[in-house]
Amino acid sequence: MNKRFDELCINTLRMLSADAVQKANSGHPGMPMGDAAMAYTLWTKFLKHNPKNPHWHNRDRFILSAGHGSMLLYSLLHLTGHNISMKDIKNFRQLGSKTPGHPEHDLDSGIETTTGPLGQGFATGVGMAVAEKYLAEMFNKPGFSIIDHYIYAICSDGDLMEGISHEAASFAGHFGLGKLIYLYSDNKISIDGSTDLTFTENVASRFRAYNWHVQKVDGNDVQEVASAIREAQKESGKPSMIIARTHIGYGSPNKHDTSGVHGSPLGEEELKLTKENLGWPLKKFYVPPEVLSHFRKAVDKGKKAEEQWKEKFKKYRKKYPKLAKQWNMMVKRNGTDHKKYFPSFKPSDGPLATRSASGKILNSIADHIPHLLGGSADLAPSNNTYLKDYPEFGSKKGGRNFHFGVREHVMGAILNGMALSNMLIPYGGTFFVFTDYMRSSMRISALTGAHVIYILTHDSVGLGEDGPTHQPIGHLTSMRAMPNMSLIRPADANETSVAWQVALEQKDRPCSLILTRQKLPVIDRKKYASASLIRKGGYILADCKGKPRIIIIASGSEVHLALEAFERLSAEGHRVRVVNMASFDLYERQSGAYKDNVLPPDIENRIAIEAGHTLSMYKYVGLKGDVIGIDSFGASAPAKDLFKKFGITTDNLVRRVRTMLKG
Amino acid sequence: MNKRFDELCINTLRMLSADAVQKANSGHPGMPMGDAAMAYTLWTKFLKHNPKNPHWHNRDRFILSAGHGSMLLYSLLHLTGHNISMKDIKNFRQLGSKTPGHPEHDLDSGIETTTGPLGQGFATGVGMAVAEKYLAEMFNKPGFSIIDHYIYAICSDGDLMEGISHEAASFAGHFGLGKLIYLYSDNKISIDGSTDLTFTENVASRFRAYNWHVQKVDGNDVQEVASAIREAQKESGKPSMIIARTHIGYGSPNKHDTSGVHGSPLGEEELKLTKENLGWPLKKFYVPPEVLSHFRKAVDKGKKAEEQWKEKFKKYRKKYPKLAKQWNMMVKRNGTDHKKYFPSFKPSDGPLATRSASGKILNSIADHIPHLLGGSADLAPSNNTYLKDYPEFGSKKGGRNFHFGVREHVMGAILNGMALSNMLIPYGGTFFVFTDYMRSSMRISALTGAHVIYILTHDSVGLGEDGPTHQPIGHLTSMRAMPNMSLIRPADANETSVAWQVALEQKDRPCSLILTRQKLPVIDRKKYASASLIRKGGYILADCKGKPRIIIIASGSEVHLALEAFERLSAEGHRVRVVNMASFDLYERQSGAYKDNVLPPDIENRIAIEAGHTLSMYKYVGLKGDVIGIDSFGASAPAKDLFKKFGITTDNLVRRVRTMLKG
Repeated sequence: MNKRFDELCINTLRMLSADAVQKANSGHPGMPMGDAAMAYTLWTKFLKHNPKNPHWHNRDRFILSAGHGSMLLYSLLHLTGHNISMKDIKNFRQLGSKTPGHPEHDLDSGIETTTGPLGQGFATGVGMAVAEKYLAEMFNKPGFSIIDHYIYAICSDGDLMEGISHEAASFAGHFGLGKLIYLYSDNKISIDGSTDLTFTENVASRFRAYNWHVQKVDGNDVQEVASAIREAQKESGKPSMIIARTHIGYGSPNKHDTSGVHGSPLGEEELKLTKENLGWPLKKFYVPPEVLSHFRKAVDKGKKAEEQWKEKFKKYRKKYPKLAKQWNMMVKRNGTDHKKYFPSFKPSDGPLATRSASGKILNSIADHIPHLLGGSADLAPSNNTYLKDYPEFGSKKGGRNFHFGVREHVMGAILNGMALSNMLIPYGGTFFVFTDYMRSSMRISALTGAHVIYILTHDSVGLGEDGPTHQPIGHLTSMRAMPNMSLIRPADANETSVAWQVALEQKDRPCSLILTRQKLPVIDRKKYASASLIRKGGYILADCKGKPRIIIIASGSEVHLALEAFERLSAEGHRVRVVNMASFDLYERQSGAYKDNVLPPDIENRIAIEAGHTLSMYKYVGLKGDVIGIDSFGASAPAKDLFKKFGITTDNLVRRVRTMLKG
Repeated sequence: MNKRFDELCINTLRMLSADAVQKANSGHPGMPMGDAAMAYTLWTKFLKHNPKNPHWHNRDRFILSAGHGSMLLYSLLHLTGHNISMKDIKNFRQLGSKTPGHPEHDLDSGIETTTGPLGQGFATGVGMAVAEKYLAEMFNKPGFSIIDHYIYAICSDGDLMEGISHEAASFAGHFGLGKLIYLYSDNKISIDGSTDLTFTENVASRFRAYNWHVQKVDGNDVQEVASAIREAQKESGKPSMIIARTHIGYGSPNKHDTSGVHGSPLGEEELKLTKENLGWPLKKFYVPPEVLSHFRKAVDKGKKAEEQWKEKFKKYRKKYPKLAKQWNMMVKRNGTDHKKYFPSFKPSDGPLATRSASGKILNSIADHIPHLLGGSADLAPSNNTYLKDYPEFGSKKGGRNFHFGVREHVMGAILNGMALSNMLIPYGGTFFVFTDYMRSSMRISALTGAHVIYILTHDSVGLGEDGPTHQPIGHLTSMRAMPNMSLIRPADANETSVAWQVALEQKDRPCSLILTRQKLPVIDRKKYASASLIRKGGYILADCKGKPRIIIIASGSEVHLALEAFERLSAEGHRVRVVNMASFDLYERQSGAYKDNVLPPDIENRIAIEAGHTLSMYKYVGLKGDVIGIDSFGASAPAKDLFKKFGITTDNLVRRVRTMLKG
């Protein structure tokens, strides 16, 4: 291939992107224009993918971590024959289009993951590399490299400034994830202006300190980029960082190397000048036929690559039928064929923290769900996330226990990357309050519908002495307002078991399990309703005969206070109902009739109790209702003192119920 | 001082801490035992502080970033004569004590800032160093070093694993904050076990890559630590990192260098063995008198140091009366003596985004409030945070514009550190959705009552084409559930001006200003109620004659839809009221009578409209009410298309009002 033809292909990427941004009158042309050469090199000379089946499990992954440059990705996908048409390109950033402002996970179109919040793509790739390693260790046999692919990314200075890039790089370097090959587009420009304003660290030294293989190249030189990628592939024991000097807005006579071209269209006039400067025809959305046919070679090449892999897998199936069967199971991510392995708990077993129940459940089911794996952000003994019968990830084959380190933010992103394999169900644990550190990753879980399970323990002031810094207050309310994030706060060990089943069954979204530090009795299900009802999110746990005069609503540990109050008030002759509202989102997915039965609209005497901020519970108690909760920060003291201080007690609940019934 | 006496002092710190943890039967003895030697060295040989006046502005700052080792700090404060008594030590982690599980900002007792969520202390210190530099540039004159102090911290591997430490170190290195001297306690142990499990990066190389001055010492060697601190002080152009090899649980025969001593008491038996091993008397809370009198020299020394400073300041006042006057103003943090400088806006000025109004306001008041300073996380042109007439921080004297970089998390922490000077009112801007990145810092703002102003723009799907990754949905609800965080979402330019005044006046808490990307008309205040009423949080903006049949509740940009609906429905003869609910927290601080007037309990026809998750508005509409909002993620399209798609329109509001009135 000669240099001029390379340039023609590269300019096609540049101008297609710039035209689309101009038509949308919104977007980021500078990055696609600056990074087109390295993207071209990677996509035409290295990337293993099948445009006609973007779901092929052994494809290479490509992440545009600098997601604002989305038009570069859409241009690449269109040109290589993925399911992004020219019409889609022309509809860039319009309602209902397949080409939104920032890339959103859409594997049918070849978009591997959602990027845009900077650093997230960088970090998600680490999770993909973890999945690659785990699956390769599980399935590969001599002569059968069933799983063997690279994870490529293009990232920006913004990605590297974000803290999550540090966590991700430190983790990837420690575990020697050699399949990671990242291209850093070093264009020296950020939105505020030159990166010299605030970002002058030595990126190469920094990444070497993390145990990465580092190279520097001219990002516009196809040969240099290609040879660096080859070197990176050779280095199998370290992740690779290729620092590529690029020029934002390359080709624009007046805007290249300026922040003005970062986040705004070039403008018709400058777009014209740019085309003239690059020797490009002035017409819009022009793709030279020879360029299209060159990029489109990816279709045949990809088809052939997948077919060869399928052939290999056919032989593998014969030789390793058990593993092939496991492969099939994992592709379906079945986690609940094994209901019998979920433990059940009796009141006579004695009180048990829901975090401890969760740990027992995990260890009961782990043997039967080889695609379930995870760990904790350096709180394994507290989060009860450790699988006793399995080794550490990275230490030996089949390692399923992850030491994410005190790195909550990247833990979330790694879980996302693992889940995007569509063969693994990853979990990660930390204290509930530290979701503050990984909210951005959790939001990406929800936005991409990643099948991730968050194990969030120490869920209230009930954690006691560690004090306000460690006590979640608004976190339940906060998480309930995150679309597509399932949240379950079980009231005892048996509900925890059902919650785990729900979390495994909901394959289209993440699920947060909110668990106590403190021990809770196992509810006597002969006396009260079945634990399996928490599948409905909210259910009638205890009820009076006839129509209740008042409904007590509670979740998690406070359900026990509600039950105690129920017993005392019933003994006094009051007609009381207890509704266990373990999950707002599951409850809201029930029928209107079901909800009207649980919380009849005409019963307005309602009181909620929850050891967290009161805000969200008002939804269910209404204007005439009452909420017992905590609207200030917590305090440092033994749990029982704190519950008393904040009025999270049966006595207070009974008193407030009586007041309401009198009122 | 001889080595044996040093050891006696160090062991006092160790055993006082271990005794307190044992008595509380909860806490972290390992860190105080491991880090006592370097803490002793720093506190007795270097730290400039006045135990009898911890508020002295020119004191050195000490941050225990590894906040779980809080007993080390309490021991130091007690021994040096701060307002922490032996009784307080014995009440460690008990209700109402001054010695909570993790240090909480309490300057009366000498506790500089809240730590515990790892990385936060490390990052807050950078903000303190920024404040030191800014104030020194402002006030120091030849012969008058009014502001000249160090910021010391002890941090742990956990601090360095957190992403925020990267952002903080990269920022501090770039700006050459030479007053930062951090001691890293390299004890090779985290909760999960050896740091070799997941944390093997080369910390020294990493920090050198950030432009830090790096040294390595034996953390138990007083001379080595002292000489490293002296070297660090000499290096005035770079922050300093002293990597000190320490041993967690030092002195414990069976638990030293193990994770078992990290977060649990030693146990009576091991505590006894430790005391024997260290040659320590078995009695509890023992402080040798000669040790106490040695530490207590800090009282006289501190008093003298502050007196000398006061003498100097007296002369300074004479020589630089204007600057001394400015000092006095800044110590009071007065921001609203200047009401006349706040711009007001007329409907005829045309529509204006509240973010643009905010930028105009900032630039109007900046000259009059020299203690107001800040910037953006690389979104200055979008957040409108730039002060046109002032230079960049770091570029020359008086620089007030900060380029935080794409580093939201540390931006929040830096703002906290600056605010803790009690002389500055810092602000920081980013897109509202990216509060996900800095929530932990924002929570620390709220927990410490730091006077920080967050400028959060692009507050809904109204930002348009950037799409779901950039569109906040649950963020209003989420932030409303954070205790002590004030949040105001103004509806037009004039309300933005009042909101800024409120933010400046509320000196005991942070305030988040939630601003639009899109333009909004300036509300005609001759026709509707005064903008100043948003001081009440919620107020009657438009009202019918007589008792309303329905109340429309809205905030921010949706207030305009409510007003349009009001006009249309009023013209049809409906009795409608519009309540502008700009701030839940300000509203909730009003009297019951006020609230019953704005939202009379007997008017149950209520409908809220807000371009965000519906959850929080249920609090004000009740069971019979209706909320128009967005409970899914957004989409990428021009704003007007999105508002239509999600039903955030006057038409939809009018329709739903009519339905309710019929119902």
